[in-house]
Amino acid sequence: MGNSQFDHVSVTKKANIYFDGKCISHNLVFPDQTRKTLGVIMPGTLTFGTDTPEVMEIVQGKCRARIGPDGEWKTYEGGQQFRVPGQSSFEIEVSEPVHYVCHFSNQ
Amino acid sequence: MGNSQFDHVSVTKKANIYFDGKCISHNLVFPDQTRKTLGVIMPGTLTFGTDTPEVMEIVQGKCRARIGPDGEWKTYEGGQQFRVPGQSSFEIEVSEPVHYVCHFSNQ
Repeated sequence: MGNSQFDHVSVTKKANIYFDGKCISHNLVFPDQTRKTLGVIMPGTLTFGTDTPEVMEIVQGKCRARIGPDGEWKTYEGGQQFRVPGQSSFEIEVSEPVHYVCHFSNQ
Repeated sequence: MGNSQFDHVSVTKKANIYFDGKCISHNLVFPDQTRKTLGVIMPGTLTFGTDTPEVMEIVQGKCRARIGPDGEWKTYEGGQQFRVPGQSSFEIEVSEPVHYVCHFSNQ
C-alpha cells in the first residue's frame, strides 16, 4: 500500500456519494477480484457502519477516528491506517481532507 | 463510453479536490497512456478553465452548462456530453449530483 496509484484495475464510472457529498468514493475491482473503494472525506464528523471487516488506509489528510461506540479517539495522518471489525461502525472527525482507500479484508 | 466501468486502468490514490469539495475527481491512465478524470460535481454553479480541449461525459445527474463566456446555457443529463475547446472555460450549474468522465481530446 505504499505507492501512489493502483494499476490494472477496473473502476466504476458512477461514484458513491455519502452525507451530501462530504464523502465521495469510487469502487475498484482488482485482477484477483478483490474490491476496494477509493475516496475522499471532507472536513466534518461522520459515522460509517461496516458489514465486513475493513482497513481504512489514510493516503493524505488528517483525522481522528474511534472504532465502535466505546472506542478511544485516535489521530491518523497520511501513511497510517486503522482496522474496523465487521458489523461495527467508526466515527471519523476530519480536520484536513482525507484521501483514503478502504480495503475489505474478508476476501 | 457506453458501459459502466473502465477496465485495466491505473488510478491515482490521491484525489483532486476543487471548490472545497464541490468537485472531486481521480486521475485515470489507460494502457495506451491516454488520461481521463473521473469524478463528481455536487449541486451548485462552478466555472472550470481548460488547458487542452475536453469532452465532459455526463454518466449520471443533471446540469446546465455553457461553454466560454458567451455560450448558451444547455441542459445535459446522464448519457450526454459536451465539448469544450482548449484555453477556454465552461460554467456548469448542477441540479442533481453529476457523475462525470472528463476526456482530454488532444492525445
